[in-house]
Amino acid sequence: MDIMKKALEMHGQYGGKLEVQSKVPVQDSYDLSLAYSPGVAAPCLEIEKNRSLVYDYTMKGNMVAVVSDGTAVLGLGDIGPEAALPVMEGKAILLKRFANVDAFPICLDTKNSDEIVSIVKALAPTFGAVNLEDISAPRCFEIEDRLRRECNIPVFHDDQHGTAIVVGAGMINANRIVKKDVETMKIVINGAGAAGIAILRILVQMGYKNIYMCDTKGLIYEGRAEGMNPIKEAVAHLTNPEKIHGTLEDALRGADVFIGVSVANLLTEAHIQSMNDDPIVFALANPNPEITYDNAKAWGVRIIGTGRSDYPNQINNVLAFPGIFRGALDVRATDINEAMKLAAVEAIASLVSDEELQEEYIVPKSFDERVVEVVSRAVSGAAVESGVSELFQQQAVLSKVM
Amino acid sequence: MDIMKKALEMHGQYGGKLEVQSKVPVQDSYDLSLAYSPGVAAPCLEIEKNRSLVYDYTMKGNMVAVVSDGTAVLGLGDIGPEAALPVMEGKAILLKRFANVDAFPICLDTKNSDEIVSIVKALAPTFGAVNLEDISAPRCFEIEDRLRRECNIPVFHDDQHGTAIVVGAGMINANRIVKKDVETMKIVINGAGAAGIAILRILVQMGYKNIYMCDTKGLIYEGRAEGMNPIKEAVAHLTNPEKIHGTLEDALRGADVFIGVSVANLLTEAHIQSMNDDPIVFALANPNPEITYDNAKAWGVRIIGTGRSDYPNQINNVLAFPGIFRGALDVRATDINEAMKLAAVEAIASLVSDEELQEEYIVPKSFDERVVEVVSRAVSGAAVESGVSELFQQQAVLSKVM
Repeated sequence: MDIMKKALEMHGQYGGKLEVQSKVPVQDSYDLSLAYSPGVAAPCLEIEKNRSLVYDYTMKGNMVAVVSDGTAVLGLGDIGPEAALPVMEGKAILLKRFANVDAFPICLDTKNSDEIVSIVKALAPTFGAVNLEDISAPRCFEIEDRLRRECNIPVFHDDQHGTAIVVGAGMINANRIVKKDVETMKIVINGAGAAGIAILRILVQMGYKNIYMCDTKGLIYEGRAEGMNPIKEAVAHLTNPEKIHGTLEDALRGADVFIGVSVANLLTEAHIQSMNDDPIVFALANPNPEITYDNAKAWGVRIIGTGRSDYPNQINNVLAFPGIFRGALDVRATDINEAMKLAAVEAIASLVSDEELQEEYIVPKSFDERVVEVVSRAVSGAAVESGVSELFQQQAVLSKVM
Repeated sequence: MDIMKKALEMHGQYGGKLEVQSKVPVQDSYDLSLAYSPGVAAPCLEIEKNRSLVYDYTMKGNMVAVVSDGTAVLGLGDIGPEAALPVMEGKAILLKRFANVDAFPICLDTKNSDEIVSIVKALAPTFGAVNLEDISAPRCFEIEDRLRRECNIPVFHDDQHGTAIVVGAGMINANRIVKKDVETMKIVINGAGAAGIAILRILVQMGYKNIYMCDTKGLIYEGRAEGMNPIKEAVAHLTNPEKIHGTLEDALRGADVFIGVSVANLLTEAHIQSMNDDPIVFALANPNPEITYDNAKAWGVRIIGTGRSDYPNQINNVLAFPGIFRGALDVRATDINEAMKLAAVEAIASLVSDEELQEEYIVPKSFDERVVEVVSRAVSGAAVESGVSELFQQQAVLSKVM
């Protein structure tokens, strides 16, 4: 593939993709007397007196740590922290390009969950938020849960929630076309990794009730013995109310929606035939989806979304995370909570007007410049409403005092 | 002080001083297909196969972590990691401005030495080198020693070695004027913190043998009971051969050199009068030295250096650390060892020609553009000669193979 050769050349030519630059003038000794000794003592002393001023006088308020241990990188698996670095640099570039958020890669030479948690907590003074990236399941769930509880800055695992938020938006808009009942329509999620679990959770919060989840051992159900872990126990509790045992085939019979976060070329014509009328398919395996766009169309899928930019309905988490971090940082959110994620879902969905909406256009394009602004405003608003905006609380206190 | 007000305003206006930028084009989806998915998989896979390629395809090779726990910041003391952040941003700016080294602040929310060591080790995949900054003594010694042993990237504590290297250069050139015997001239160092200890060590390596060190309890000697620690035990072993007990006054009698890394306005006229002919004074307390330039001159000091930019002979570690990191990164050094530090001392001293040399000009100016190049070349050379350059070893292997 020529793009691979080109990409390798480009990375070598520039010596990586990120650099750190001064925002302030540094031409002469006067400039440096403000930016460094002796002037720098002034912001230091102000922050020492009132720690929240670190947001005013340092880079912290616009700086996201992109943290990975390199255990689940792209489709490549556990390639280690050094080999993960190009991806984290790329992520930082996306945050800057789409949302003017500064981001810095932190690739950690440890896979120990406790150690990762304590390192990220120790790094928190430097950053305004943390994006966890490419950490393998189920460790990613525990790491994220603990960091959200123990850190005073927001922590977001994009592989989980970024994907889930865009799928949620896609579901809203697909259902504006097929108009089925949220409470009864049958959804099958294939893949119980980071993304699959997060998709399940957000769909439950959106009111979907008839959900089934499969992993490599087939349908997950309460009481299954094989291949379970605490997360899958929770999945069993949230899904498959009749505790049906069976394969993906069994699950798909009569399903309205298939959401795949699994492996390429999984779905056959028979699978699609066994689904309900107007089937919706989100085939998100990367780089090759569970079913190609052409096969989906030939076999009768009404609405097909994939991760690919060369087909309609690209389910790309770049629609979510830049605006989410922009919105969280703008109001100094201490968390990225469920209300903020749902606000992002609705904001993304709302960008497709009734006039534009059609089978081939259920989510905005990745380069749609409106997305970041609309998502970040929705996320900021939800942060304020749900009481996790430090800036708003400070201002509320001030306005009472005045 | 107006500069403080100006500095505070400037920090607030820009919202901190650093930003992260892309070095590669990111205009359209083609650009992103090279910098991110799917193209980014190419450098990931290459690095997975051969980990040293992380230096070719990522930012690592030019990226320094500026690590602090905020316990000994400027003259401000233990102000915490948030309040230390403006200083670390300033340090990163200096590295970029003077040596085109990218640097990123890491302010840690822990003072535990073991934890700091294990965090920095875990961060090592992301960085090409580590600059420890403003970590209080004696913890800084243990942290640096352990990291130098346990990390495969160079670790340098600038508060120690940066200052020591410039003092070393100042000593060489001061002695080109007073022409005393290195083995017998009497040197008194006042202050047994990070900088004082490092100055002592480098002077010992430069061949000075008649050194005395004082702390707040007076002269350090073998067998002293009060206020000792393992570092000061080592100091006692290296200094004060007759095990003289006494005060700074006792130490100064007949001294040729006073080096202060202690407190402002410490030296009196009587102190200076008690010294040997042609006294040399490095009064490095910041922002106000142990003796003012004017008093030193009035009381008969022959050569006076301070940390101040508004008087001659500014002993500023910006003469050392940018070139040291540039030189270490250029040859992928795995350590910044004593040979490299001594090479930096000599390189800095060499920039003052015989024609230029005089009491008021013993070290180059901070903005002398030649310094970084001369220092970095000397440091690179010493790294290669002393066998800590990975790049050179790779090339040596290659040239044997070819």
